[in-house]
Amino acid sequence: MKIAILGYGTVGRGTYDILQERKNRLEDQVELEVKKVLMLEKEVATCGLDKALVSTDYQEILDDPEIECIVEVTGAKKQGFLFMKEALEAKKHVVTANKAVVSKHFSELNDLADRYQVHFLYEAAVGGGIPILTPLKSQALLNNIDSIEGILNGTCNYILSNMQTKAWGYEETLKKAQDLGFAEADPTDDVEGFDTLRKLVILSSIAQNILVNEDEVALEGISNLGLEDVAYFKDQDLKVKLLASYGKKGDDSYSLIVEPVLIGRDHPLYNVDGETNAITLHGHNVDQLTFMGPGAGKYPTGNAVVCDLIDVARGSDLPLKFGDKTQSAENNIQAAYYISSDQDLNLPEDWFSNEGEKIDGHRARTKALPRDSVIGTLENLRKAGQKIFFARLG
Amino acid sequence: MKIAILGYGTVGRGTYDILQERKNRLEDQVELEVKKVLMLEKEVATCGLDKALVSTDYQEILDDPEIECIVEVTGAKKQGFLFMKEALEAKKHVVTANKAVVSKHFSELNDLADRYQVHFLYEAAVGGGIPILTPLKSQALLNNIDSIEGILNGTCNYILSNMQTKAWGYEETLKKAQDLGFAEADPTDDVEGFDTLRKLVILSSIAQNILVNEDEVALEGISNLGLEDVAYFKDQDLKVKLLASYGKKGDDSYSLIVEPVLIGRDHPLYNVDGETNAITLHGHNVDQLTFMGPGAGKYPTGNAVVCDLIDVARGSDLPLKFGDKTQSAENNIQAAYYISSDQDLNLPEDWFSNEGEKIDGHRARTKALPRDSVIGTLENLRKAGQKIFFARLG
Repeated sequence: MKIAILGYGTVGRGTYDILQERKNRLEDQVELEVKKVLMLEKEVATCGLDKALVSTDYQEILDDPEIECIVEVTGAKKQGFLFMKEALEAKKHVVTANKAVVSKHFSELNDLADRYQVHFLYEAAVGGGIPILTPLKSQALLNNIDSIEGILNGTCNYILSNMQTKAWGYEETLKKAQDLGFAEADPTDDVEGFDTLRKLVILSSIAQNILVNEDEVALEGISNLGLEDVAYFKDQDLKVKLLASYGKKGDDSYSLIVEPVLIGRDHPLYNVDGETNAITLHGHNVDQLTFMGPGAGKYPTGNAVVCDLIDVARGSDLPLKFGDKTQSAENNIQAAYYISSDQDLNLPEDWFSNEGEKIDGHRARTKALPRDSVIGTLENLRKAGQKIFFARLG
Repeated sequence: MKIAILGYGTVGRGTYDILQERKNRLEDQVELEVKKVLMLEKEVATCGLDKALVSTDYQEILDDPEIECIVEVTGAKKQGFLFMKEALEAKKHVVTANKAVVSKHFSELNDLADRYQVHFLYEAAVGGGIPILTPLKSQALLNNIDSIEGILNGTCNYILSNMQTKAWGYEETLKKAQDLGFAEADPTDDVEGFDTLRKLVILSSIAQNILVNEDEVALEGISNLGLEDVAYFKDQDLKVKLLASYGKKGDDSYSLIVEPVLIGRDHPLYNVDGETNAITLHGHNVDQLTFMGPGAGKYPTGNAVVCDLIDVARGSDLPLKFGDKTQSAENNIQAAYYISSDQDLNLPEDWFSNEGEKIDGHRARTKALPRDSVIGTLENLRKAGQKIFFARLG
């Protein structure tokens, strides 16, 4: 199978390198050949590739009947979507690592792949190098997936782990993450949870075989976390993680929440620190499965892309068959929360009982409450100028 | 695809139940129909199945051209092998959960499947419900797998976890495990490590694409562990696990060891307690991946069997292509050991240094030493009548 790689950044290079390095070993099973690498004109001089391999014109790739599959690793949102759409319409298979595009256009891209009878795979879009989407497709066939919890963003987990183990402040830790290349110059997508949300959309759509929309997800990031919060969690032997949570409630209801969660030592994700990602799921037949690994990186992500290429070339992936069923998440779960403010915190008295406690004048732990009422109250406090951090007790 | 299930014990029933329960959901992707269930004459009356579905004569199944695949879940070693061999020779696909037979006859069964161009799959043989062999096959294509460590036996892990958390003695914990159905009446296969060894043979053969033999594995079980050992580990913030370890040393050498290992909080398997199994592996491209889940049980294991059936029906598994290359494990690694005896322990003085220490008259922790010299010395002490427990410092 002849391939075009669109974009020659970190993931594009990782993919290309692995395909070259493993050529002999792969030949036993599949033939995968990179025919073109699409890049910008200004990148050509320094790419280090044979000029015959380079293209700066996507139309040339679309028009090439020998190219059966494109690997979209541009990282671009609008352009990435157009590349994929045009490739599918040209009856070419698509493999991508672009979670933003898969999450936003999941329905349309799936429909196109189905209409033109080509493969559309995106293992690298969730959990970097962790093989999770391929096993999840099989598990979802055989199980009612009741719950998924994931640490899906390495930047957030790096920041949270280091704030907790090293007692660094939020800004300081973010700066270190940026210096080390774990965080973008503009970290909003990561620290405010948008990246995690996209991955949850993909996971939960596959898990329940119903397409989920981004706007169904309740979202809270980590940027309001303070050192005093972290000190309390340490004292309580808890860790704070930005968790993506999918939960099934009965046959016709589910919740989708991305927010900080406090977990104890017996939680399967407690030991997942630094940039590592992990996903734990529960199915009624298989029970609890947990997958951990590198959430990003040139070779781990390239490795996931090449796994997809093998499946495309062999036609071995399980196609998703979403019906027309649509539902909406119901996120008003019952949960207890840790809450802190930079000012005096006056919360309703009936939020406390034996299980809840007021830690001090600006920190508290509530009893289990309907989530909507907690978040509604906290939003009002924010509107009144308070800097609020909150985390669910997991 | 029409199937015959051979054996209607725990795994056979789990497999049958899942196929019935998920029939509608599966139909989108594959057609799987149980045509016959083979059982002993005495089981027929109480099996609860439609009599038309039951067979007590394997030849009838072999002769039925409609049956394309057999599921061997008898648990029997000699009979299980014969069933599989005859099925493959009759050009029927084979799916099994029988680790003892796969491990012992890996080469012959693979060769038969290859010769008759049928599928031979055994996901349920390692890690129960955890999808590990299917992802490992893909990872091994794209990675030099440098290491694998696994907790592969739920009985041992249940015993070790409970001895450590509840300070129960070995015999008492084993008895509880037997009462709860986690351990067999004769626990030798589990507690002496044979079951773990078989799973390591399967994992490491796939990881390096070279067939490994059972007798290459260095083996030590857990039955000599005492409460005083456990108290010391707790004091040191260590846990003892029966680990299956595969390690690559350079291009042409590898080690295969099943023995108790002491691991600290930063080890990915530290939090794997009770009957849970887990496997962690390192590949040069993908980095470190960890998979955790239920190591046994009716539905988790049945779930793994049905995953294989889907792959067989869709022809989507990656076939293994072992070459003629054979090697032998080199288990004389450098490692430090914890050692205890029921008598005075006199170990060579040069086994100690800053890293090592004599804990008391009958317990010690050595510096890093060639494994062969440690084990050789300990074997001599055993021959002299000492009850010796040892564990590697992981």
